[in-house]
Amino acid sequence: MARPYDQPCPVAASLDVLGSRWTLLVVRELLLGRTRFSEIAAGLPGIAHNLLSDRLKLLERHEIVTRRVLPQRPPRTEYRLTDAGRDLDKVIAALGIWGSEHAFPDVRPVHVSCGTPVVHDIRCPECDTTLGKGDVTVQSMES
Amino acid sequence: MARPYDQPCPVAASLDVLGSRWTLLVVRELLLGRTRFSEIAAGLPGIAHNLLSDRLKLLERHEIVTRRVLPQRPPRTEYRLTDAGRDLDKVIAALGIWGSEHAFPDVRPVHVSCGTPVVHDIRCPECDTTLGKGDVTVQSMES
Repeated sequence: MARPYDQPCPVAASLDVLGSRWTLLVVRELLLGRTRFSEIAAGLPGIAHNLLSDRLKLLERHEIVTRRVLPQRPPRTEYRLTDAGRDLDKVIAALGIWGSEHAFPDVRPVHVSCGTPVVHDIRCPECDTTLGKGDVTVQSMES
Repeated sequence: MARPYDQPCPVAASLDVLGSRWTLLVVRELLLGRTRFSEIAAGLPGIAHNLLSDRLKLLERHEIVTRRVLPQRPPRTEYRLTDAGRDLDKVIAALGIWGSEHAFPDVRPVHVSCGTPVVHDIRCPECDTTLGKGDVTVQSMES
């Protein structure tokens, strides 16, 4: 694994967990509902199986994924996202929206029921307003 | 640079551009308003200068950054985000929000004017509704 950035910044902290090659695409596969190693591997052409195994262990260590061996014959292993893992849907959506606008316009994230390309808004829940560039800063949460 | 994923997916396409180490943190520095090489480097402790130079060239090649040499003595080089680069504010915000919730809670992205931690929503602009997990799919934009 790459050396962590180890910066006092939540963006860098996210990338310390998620920034290694393939990791976010593994999360994408899990968000798509794939639970078996072979299903996840099938969605990631080119990934070596030991690397996929490493990435799943990394995600398990960071409590993004749970691994469960189902007591059946032959035993079957299932990978599922935790709540923290499911919260990555916004990160994946943000990457998908940007990618469809600027890197791969052939495919768009759309609303299932009407087919309209979706948008991503940053909001203040207190003021109930959508925020633009320059409306967000980072603040220490220590008292 | 790592081999591209080369998948027909806007998430993978974004990561083909942005997924290499340091790249998104360089974008973070530019979003924070830093324009000079030395300022950007100062925000990224541990980055080698030739690597920062490579990352800025990569971003320039993908039209995320423009580089301009100002005609003064000594000449000064400025880096600025293009519109496509400024649109990455949503990706950086998504990583920052997830990171502050699950990886580095000491610091939170907040609304500048009231200090409330910000939230993010995926929305359908047509239906004017906030979308949840399962409400978004990808659709080919070919006619």
